[in-house]
Amino acid sequence: MSSTNQPLYEALKRNISKNPMSFHVPGHKYGKVYGKESMVHFQSILDIDATEVNGLDDLHAPEKAIREAQELACHFFNCDHTFFLVNGTTVGNLAMILAVCRPGNQIIVQRNCHKSVLNGLELAGASPVFLSPRYEDETGRYSRVCVEDVEQVLKQYPESKAVFLTYPDYFGRVYNLEEVARVVHKYNIPLLVDEAHGVHFQLEGPFPKPALAAGADVVTQSAHKMAPAMTMASYLHIQGERVDTNRIRHYLQMLQSSSPSYPLMASLDIARSYLSSWGTEDLNLLLPYINRVREIFSSYRHRWEVKLTRGHDPLKLTLDVKKGTGFEVANIMDESGVIPEMATSSQVLLVLGLAPSVNLEQLEFRLRTVDYQLKKVPDRATIREDQIPFPTIQQLELSYSDMQGRNVEKVKWVEAEGRVAAEALIPYPPGIPLVMKGERIGEKQIHNVQNLIKQGARFQNIDMKQGILVFKGE
Amino acid sequence: MSSTNQPLYEALKRNISKNPMSFHVPGHKYGKVYGKESMVHFQSILDIDATEVNGLDDLHAPEKAIREAQELACHFFNCDHTFFLVNGTTVGNLAMILAVCRPGNQIIVQRNCHKSVLNGLELAGASPVFLSPRYEDETGRYSRVCVEDVEQVLKQYPESKAVFLTYPDYFGRVYNLEEVARVVHKYNIPLLVDEAHGVHFQLEGPFPKPALAAGADVVTQSAHKMAPAMTMASYLHIQGERVDTNRIRHYLQMLQSSSPSYPLMASLDIARSYLSSWGTEDLNLLLPYINRVREIFSSYRHRWEVKLTRGHDPLKLTLDVKKGTGFEVANIMDESGVIPEMATSSQVLLVLGLAPSVNLEQLEFRLRTVDYQLKKVPDRATIREDQIPFPTIQQLELSYSDMQGRNVEKVKWVEAEGRVAAEALIPYPPGIPLVMKGERIGEKQIHNVQNLIKQGARFQNIDMKQGILVFKGE
Ligand SMILES: Cc1ncc(COP(=O)(O)O)c(C=O)c1O
Ligand SMILES: Cc1ncc(COP(=O)(O)O)c(C=O)c1O
Repeated sequence: MSSTNQPLYEALKRNISKNPMSFHVPGHKYGKVYGKESMVHFQSILDIDATEVNGLDDLHAPEKAIREAQELACHFFNCDHTFFLVNGTTVGNLAMILAVCRPGNQIIVQRNCHKSVLNGLELAGASPVFLSPRYEDETGRYSRVCVEDVEQVLKQYPESKAVFLTYPDYFGRVYNLEEVARVVHKYNIPLLVDEAHGVHFQLEGPFPKPALAAGADVVTQSAHKMAPAMTMASYLHIQGERVDTNRIRHYLQMLQSSSPSYPLMASLDIARSYLSSWGTEDLNLLLPYINRVREIFSSYRHRWEVKLTRGHDPLKLTLDVKKGTGFEVANIMDESGVIPEMATSSQVLLVLGLAPSVNLEQLEFRLRTVDYQLKKVPDRATIREDQIPFPTIQQLELSYSDMQGRNVEKVKWVEAEGRVAAEALIPYPPGIPLVMKGERIGEKQIHNVQNLIKQGARFQNIDMKQGILVFKGE
Repeated sequence: MSSTNQPLYEALKRNISKNPMSFHVPGHKYGKVYGKESMVHFQSILDIDATEVNGLDDLHAPEKAIREAQELACHFFNCDHTFFLVNGTTVGNLAMILAVCRPGNQIIVQRNCHKSVLNGLELAGASPVFLSPRYEDETGRYSRVCVEDVEQVLKQYPESKAVFLTYPDYFGRVYNLEEVARVVHKYNIPLLVDEAHGVHFQLEGPFPKPALAAGADVVTQSAHKMAPAMTMASYLHIQGERVDTNRIRHYLQMLQSSSPSYPLMASLDIARSYLSSWGTEDLNLLLPYINRVREIFSSYRHRWEVKLTRGHDPLKLTLDVKKGTGFEVANIMDESGVIPEMATSSQVLLVLGLAPSVNLEQLEFRLRTVDYQLKKVPDRATIREDQIPFPTIQQLELSYSDMQGRNVEKVKWVEAEGRVAAEALIPYPPGIPLVMKGERIGEKQIHNVQNLIKQGARFQNIDMKQGILVFKGE
């Protein structure tokens, strides 16, 4: 890997090597104005925390280093245009939706999508038609987007401007996106894919097919999640002509700071260079590591079952817990220094990186503590039902413009049945709403959420003790 | 300054000191998965580039470390609520406008505002009434927001939901915001202030009055511009009850990544702690430094005049150039290693930090080179007119919802007279649109912009050689 392979990072290093006298922002002046005690972690990064000076280009109108870095990424991901994002896949999802939907436009959206997608729909004033994936015994979740369902919803709503799907899901589960793309493209509308968890699929080998290769028109990827970029750094890729690149660009400049962070952008340059130099040697290090981690976890089969993921992302390890809830097991792991990604009432999700990063002896040692601590968890039958079945095809009760004008009130959760929610109910992680803003709350949801709360789920933005906002007079 | 003064940064240090085994995102695993060559600048920051694990709280639902850090900031800035922003003052401006404006609502907005404000108006579908500041000989710019004008526009548009102003301007110029606040509050509507360049006003002493102290209801501040936070880190402060904190919160979680960057958030914690421990000693270091920098620049009075800024921000130095254009002088400085913040056709802006950061002997040395290089610039009369006079009160030709439905076409700039712009024309920096989306283009603007281009201004997002987008059939 030649060093010229990181044009933006190189430009930043060149800049500081010239010993520039900063009479410009940022106010830390390459770290010269800073609290001494905090310098331990910050000095080296502040050297490259620059602004749009000569040679460093401008994310919102790239012509040189940033453009080159984006083009290298575009080439690596084999598409027609790549945008660096400094506000996460969140901003990419917002921009995709705003680019294709004007107020009132219909769009087909996977029901269990990330909250950023719902926020995008609200901002755009779109008229969403939700499509729920099917339940799979293999995963114990609603994880399979079914091509027949896509066909059905398109037939039913042929005016839709786009189809928006999540691929893979949080647990690395994939489905036949290629077939879905073929169906969507028969209607000559774009397939938009939230591939937040799949940036490394581009490496091929043991990884599933990337969304772009499957035919998606626009794809967002959290480079920070599965590749080694800094948190909040993501990519947005476009291929083909079904979506207007200028509209995407317009919304990205609108929704991202006019002072984008150079360390974040440089980390996207570095992550792409890391991925493109990744090869057989790395794979030969990674696979035995994955296997050993699996084995180590599998040796506690009285505590959990390590789910098989053939054909799915091998970097995600799902534990089906046998004692306690997923939340309880995750807490105990956490206290023992083994930090999982996420828990549901019945599962714990572990995420590996693209290279070995955990000392396996230490892992064995810490898991013995986990095992010991789990003994103290009382044996009891827990109702595990965070998997609320959504209707296969569903629309909101109210349009977003209707919602704008209405008054709201707070009601106790147990009294919310039949009311239309004025705020989403989002366990975090994974950030997938159980109740959407504008959805009528059903009996089953009430029941499910109460169980979830008992089991220790955390909700974002809502204190469930105080209740939930619903629309008045509805 | 006790170290417990930085609760978020401390929590991050505690987290890494426990040697956690990351089975979660980000994919770099505290830097263990990363390109070796890039580690020089990144390792120490990746140690704290964490995610929402136990003990690190959640920006979108803060309860512990982030909440504490925000409360310390709130206390320091003497307001009722402080939000940490990881997407710049940009996202704060968007959220403020979305929080007060529903589609079609009127709002009074300072005409020469940052583009993020116009983007907020467009996103909200607001109906803006623009108010232009008055020209001041002292600054050579349209810099004085006149309380009588505010009174007049409020009388004319009493249905307005809020008044949105910029304070200080890019050059550190202020005006009597307190009087303005009194007038605005007579209408019982909120005063929203973009104080991107004024976070340090809270230090009092030689600095102008902060917007909060002057009575603003919501204020955004780029902590990265004038305080030592990382680029893209900003604050949003609320005081009083005129704006609904929940609506602000709603739009902030909507428009910011669900994986906010911990280094950025920690830098906001550190910047507040830096500011709150700043005192007489620092001032006694800073003032002589400012004076020496002034003196050094003033010794080239055949090249430029150092503007006086009595009562205004002493950290901003404006040079009125005497030879060449501001752009030319800035370029030569740049090549000589003295990097200015910004140039206009007649001025160069220099920004100092809160502590001495430039070696003054070296500065003298480099300025001699600048002086020498300036000899080569031909003497000629340049028309200096980037100061386009805007009408004192102005509305857009089309509403944003009208614009949504219309077709656009590209026309040459010289042929754009009388057409309604479908994109803004934004020199960057300072990012203040000369032509707004939805504004009818006048003869004077055509002329002015052509001169600006000749003199070397850079425009964001538009290649002026190709022309500008205008609405069809209008
Ligand atoms: C499926 C999915 N989409 C989008 C996002 C948002 O991405 P980011 O956090 O990079 O803004 C997430 C983050 O958790 C996610 O899981
Ligand atoms: C007056 C003003 N407001 C807002 C902004 C946007 O702030 P940020 O770059 O922190 O997103 C800027 C940045 O240049 C500015 O100058």
